[in-house]
Amino acid sequence: MQTPILLPLALGLALSLPAAIAEMPATVGTSPWGPDDQLGALNLMTERSRASILSRITGGTVYDLSVEYFIGMPGWHAAGDPRYQIWMTHTPRGTVNDDPLQVGEAANDHVSYTGSAVSMYTHTGTHIDALNHFGLDGEIYNHFSADEHLGDTGWQVTGAETIPPIVARGVMIDVAAFKGVDMLPAGYRVTRADLEGALARQGVALHTGDVVLIRTGRMALYAHANRYMDNPPGLGLEAARFLAEESRAMIVGADNLSFEAFPSEIDGNYVPVHTYLLAQMGVPIMELVNLEGLAEARRYEFAFIGASLKLRGADAAPLRPIALPIH
Amino acid sequence: MQTPILLPLALGLALSLPAAIAEMPATVGTSPWGPDDQLGALNLMTERSRASILSRITGGTVYDLSVEYFIGMPGWHAAGDPRYQIWMTHTPRGTVNDDPLQVGEAANDHVSYTGSAVSMYTHTGTHIDALNHFGLDGEIYNHFSADEHLGDTGWQVTGAETIPPIVARGVMIDVAAFKGVDMLPAGYRVTRADLEGALARQGVALHTGDVVLIRTGRMALYAHANRYMDNPPGLGLEAARFLAEESRAMIVGADNLSFEAFPSEIDGNYVPVHTYLLAQMGVPIMELVNLEGLAEARRYEFAFIGASLKLRGADAAPLRPIALPIH
Amino acid sequence: MQTPILLPLALGLALSLPAAIAEMPATVGTSPWGPDDQLGALNLMTERSRASILSRITGGTVYDLSVEYFIGMPGWHAAGDPRYQIWMTHTPRGTVNDDPLQVGEAANDHVSYTGSAVSMYTHTGTHIDALNHFGLDGEIYNHFSADEHLGDTGWQVTGAETIPPIVARGVMIDVAAFKGVDMLPAGYRVTRADLEGALARQGVALHTGDVVLIRTGRMALYAHANRYMDNPPGLGLEAARFLAEESRAMIVGADNLSFEAFPSEIDGNYVPVHTYLLAQMGVPIMELVNLEGLAEARRYEFAFIGASLKLRGADAAPLRPIALPIH
Amino acid sequence: MQTPILLPLALGLALSLPAAIAEMPATVGTSPWGPDDQLGALNLMTERSRASILSRITGGTVYDLSVEYFIGMPGWHAAGDPRYQIWMTHTPRGTVNDDPLQVGEAANDHVSYTGSAVSMYTHTGTHIDALNHFGLDGEIYNHFSADEHLGDTGWQVTGAETIPPIVARGVMIDVAAFKGVDMLPAGYRVTRADLEGALARQGVALHTGDVVLIRTGRMALYAHANRYMDNPPGLGLEAARFLAEESRAMIVGADNLSFEAFPSEIDGNYVPVHTYLLAQMGVPIMELVNLEGLAEARRYEFAFIGASLKLRGADAAPLRPIALPIH
Repeated sequence: MQTPILLPLALGLALSLPAAIAEMPATVGTSPWGPDDQLGALNLMTERSRASILSRITGGTVYDLSVEYFIGMPGWHAAGDPRYQIWMTHTPRGTVNDDPLQVGEAANDHVSYTGSAVSMYTHTGTHIDALNHFGLDGEIYNHFSADEHLGDTGWQVTGAETIPPIVARGVMIDVAAFKGVDMLPAGYRVTRADLEGALARQGVALHTGDVVLIRTGRMALYAHANRYMDNPPGLGLEAARFLAEESRAMIVGADNLSFEAFPSEIDGNYVPVHTYLLAQMGVPIMELVNLEGLAEARRYEFAFIGASLKLRGADAAPLRPIALPIH
Repeated sequence: MQTPILLPLALGLALSLPAAIAEMPATVGTSPWGPDDQLGALNLMTERSRASILSRITGGTVYDLSVEYFIGMPGWHAAGDPRYQIWMTHTPRGTVNDDPLQVGEAANDHVSYTGSAVSMYTHTGTHIDALNHFGLDGEIYNHFSADEHLGDTGWQVTGAETIPPIVARGVMIDVAAFKGVDMLPAGYRVTRADLEGALARQGVALHTGDVVLIRTGRMALYAHANRYMDNPPGLGLEAARFLAEESRAMIVGADNLSFEAFPSEIDGNYVPVHTYLLAQMGVPIMELVNLEGLAEARRYEFAFIGASLKLRGADAAPLRPIALPIH
Repeated sequence: MQTPILLPLALGLALSLPAAIAEMPATVGTSPWGPDDQLGALNLMTERSRASILSRITGGTVYDLSVEYFIGMPGWHAAGDPRYQIWMTHTPRGTVNDDPLQVGEAANDHVSYTGSAVSMYTHTGTHIDALNHFGLDGEIYNHFSADEHLGDTGWQVTGAETIPPIVARGVMIDVAAFKGVDMLPAGYRVTRADLEGALARQGVALHTGDVVLIRTGRMALYAHANRYMDNPPGLGLEAARFLAEESRAMIVGADNLSFEAFPSEIDGNYVPVHTYLLAQMGVPIMELVNLEGLAEARRYEFAFIGASLKLRGADAAPLRPIALPIH
Repeated sequence: MQTPILLPLALGLALSLPAAIAEMPATVGTSPWGPDDQLGALNLMTERSRASILSRITGGTVYDLSVEYFIGMPGWHAAGDPRYQIWMTHTPRGTVNDDPLQVGEAANDHVSYTGSAVSMYTHTGTHIDALNHFGLDGEIYNHFSADEHLGDTGWQVTGAETIPPIVARGVMIDVAAFKGVDMLPAGYRVTRADLEGALARQGVALHTGDVVLIRTGRMALYAHANRYMDNPPGLGLEAARFLAEESRAMIVGADNLSFEAFPSEIDGNYVPVHTYLLAQMGVPIMELVNLEGLAEARRYEFAFIGASLKLRGADAAPLRPIALPIH
């Protein structure tokens, strides 16, 4: 159906298979919270967990963790997805000629009206992947099937509208700093050892229910869409298992797109870290998180507050999260 | 250019003119923060003001103040603006046939890929108006002119990307409850006396820099787009002046669309509350704020946290704000 | 997934079933042109059939059979489909501020650049339905199945790009004139007798391979989108069978949307005329064809020339057909 | 407002200035058809001119002069314009889950419904530029000004809806064949001598009111969007003057995008051939015309029939023209 499009990522399939990963059955996960559960790891957030982190906030500094949206921004265009667009629907001079509200030329001359509209792939800019974004064999996390629950305007389960506002302990793991570089090399696959080393260097431990954000340093290329997208560093599968299974993170994220490194480590699965986290573990992923301010301030532990748009049925939603210092 | 579209609001122009308002010169405001200022009242937010409210947070309850986005949702369509749309760009079965990433049928069968895209007028769902949304005589707040600063993809000043994350004291004024009704009548214009009466009933005073949210009860009709849009109750000009000039609110908002009541109180200006707040006072407006949870809990004072998408150049941006109880 | 939307058509299901229709098996048709055929009745068009009609053209009069596209135009919005939109991407003043081509202010001041973009449901304005638009039980005409041939960006068979330019004998059947009215009543279902009566009145016979266009007079309401869409007159099933089976029309069309009348005559099928023509007979349908000029001139037979946009994979495509007088 | 985007064309400005061109005043043209005229050279088409060419049609061969529309197709994206998109709004399986028409599961299972939508820059695929596409100093052809006639949804004059169906003598000038190459070299600027040489080789003369189509051979790269767009060959100014002023062409077109060659020959004007033809001479331009079939058949003279979509107010519109052999 499509003419060849230059793929920014080498979506090759690996030949070798790490033993530990090979043992993991490649089927979607069953939620321990019951057959109707649509939240997965988000169930780890409770009134108590929120109270715990909110009570530790100190001062009034705010770190803005999101990126800007603009025409030409990075995105997942290689798969044919639409690029971010913004256009004017009303302008002060245009309304004088159009008179869209039928108020007459004098009123349009006096009241200078500006309106605009946007369109975007839901995975554009700083965003969170809903659990339905990637499944296995026609099912998503907790065995909801596409054939029964996917309509032409989205999923009837686990849509972005089901994601609650996130108020949680946040931990930033600065892998780039641990490696002593500004930015991890192209295609670098972050290992479990990298995460543990960086955490030790930072003197921070992970707790159940954390929002864990990995800094690769890739954000330095954000203004250069093609370079940002070209073979980014990303997380490996064992590192992902360390976060989701051992550390019991509630959400994982990074400053890159799209979170994991390529080519895939798993034969026959081109995005195994996505399917592992979303479909097997029920752990949402955040991408394009801007961690530069936190890195500069060496702020590794914080209150994370972020609430994604409630796009009914969507497989992702943009959000503008913030980090607040804690004692 | 357009065939007649049914206007949900009677955009008539008033014949009489309240004395106090008539005295107000109908020109844009000059920022007290200097000729380069693009933030207006948002300058009232400081590290100290944020620290002050954050230190008062109690417990871990979160009120979600935003609405859902779905096809058929209410919107400002009468002016020709595009309606909210969501569509699938990738589905588990579709990718098997399309193979957009050129990974082959087996991989597409195994990895069940869902993607979607959205388009919307920027004033859709819970959102904040940037200061450039309405100006007077070709200028916006602080005398930036459309001819010099408006391009085809947005404003070069006061765009949504300039709006910082909002962390502030929030006050909800439940005018519907004060009036003893579930919902204010169609077209009802909220007065200064209503605001003062409701505040007295609630036992809450306004402070400089507050985010002030007016509850009309209109949200009860949100699922019925045409009824929600048809002649809503809204704020009057004197009430707006009470909030912006006397109470020095940083942001004002409501649960309706579009904030003010119609027909206009001012001859020759069909949205005088918008131009007063945005263009004359530099006070952003929030619309479609869901206040039902706060109303039910009789929670009138809270920590307001909301961060709108950084849509470069835009005249508005969606956000999903939350309210947190304070002592 | 959706809030209730006012349906302009009463999509009720009939209780009684005409005998002749009941006998027709409700499965998709098998093409007499072979298992790979994607064209159906369009195979009736040959170099000889085109030469035959082209040789009869007289003079230089052209009838424009298409409608205009504009914001607020009629459309099939009741099913949630996007409305027609047009917006400016470049304007003379905007480019001066944006400088999208990086040519500098002087060049942008001198060269006044205008660009625009559009979006639309493919069944917008004058258009032709491809055979994949409606099928039965997961298959379309000639047994292509959605599961095997439908991707996320369209069908891999019978897409609009497969429809050739149409050059054929055209016959307009003015049913409104035959009935002695300007416009058929709301919901009127055109019968076989109406078609035969109108043809007799016109003194025109149908031939194999014709493009047959039915005039209901509905076009008079085109400027009033809601009225145009509200319970239109349309074709009944026996009339459709008369055109497709007995008269062997290549394409059928009308000046209404959407061609057939509602409620349906067939239990369990809400668009039986569409499924009969497209899926069972392989006959494409044209809608929103502007026949007013032909009606005024009492021009019932003509050379029809129309070429729809080659939208790869699409289930319909807009076109602007013309009619040329013949001797 | 924008991050740098890779420009496929070197939009440099020339240093030298051909004498003849320098003499041409750089202001918009005044229509000889009067101050209200919006058609320019299209006035050359008359009932007589159409009759003349239609009477010469021989046989039933049809040459399809248009290209296909698909995701990833070439386009003018370097200026930030939206790329062609198509997406499904209804699918057989999706409607079963969505039930958009509220007909119930059985009816949705039985009636397999497919719908799709498209969005595109109006200059996408085979299209015609309206006269308002490029002007000079804020005015377009015949002195209509943007300030008075351009609204937020298009121009109130010379919009695409004003362009009549084109029925005219067509002449294809195969410059590539004249030069003995399959495709003119990248950036090659077609000269007047090239046109005259090719016409002599073809044994065809131009007449007033012709649709003149230049073949560069570029269409061979159409399936490779980036290569198609990268520094294409195109028409020079003197060649354009030969066509518009001396030969009195009604429309000029080519198989490339965007018609002229770059860098510009005129200091301070980055698209002088466009402004010359559209704004000074009132001659519409067609781009992306597929001339491969005509070239293969050595068919240089034909009846040209093409009718562009009536997009109200638009600066261009897609069309699918055909060529018919004549004696």
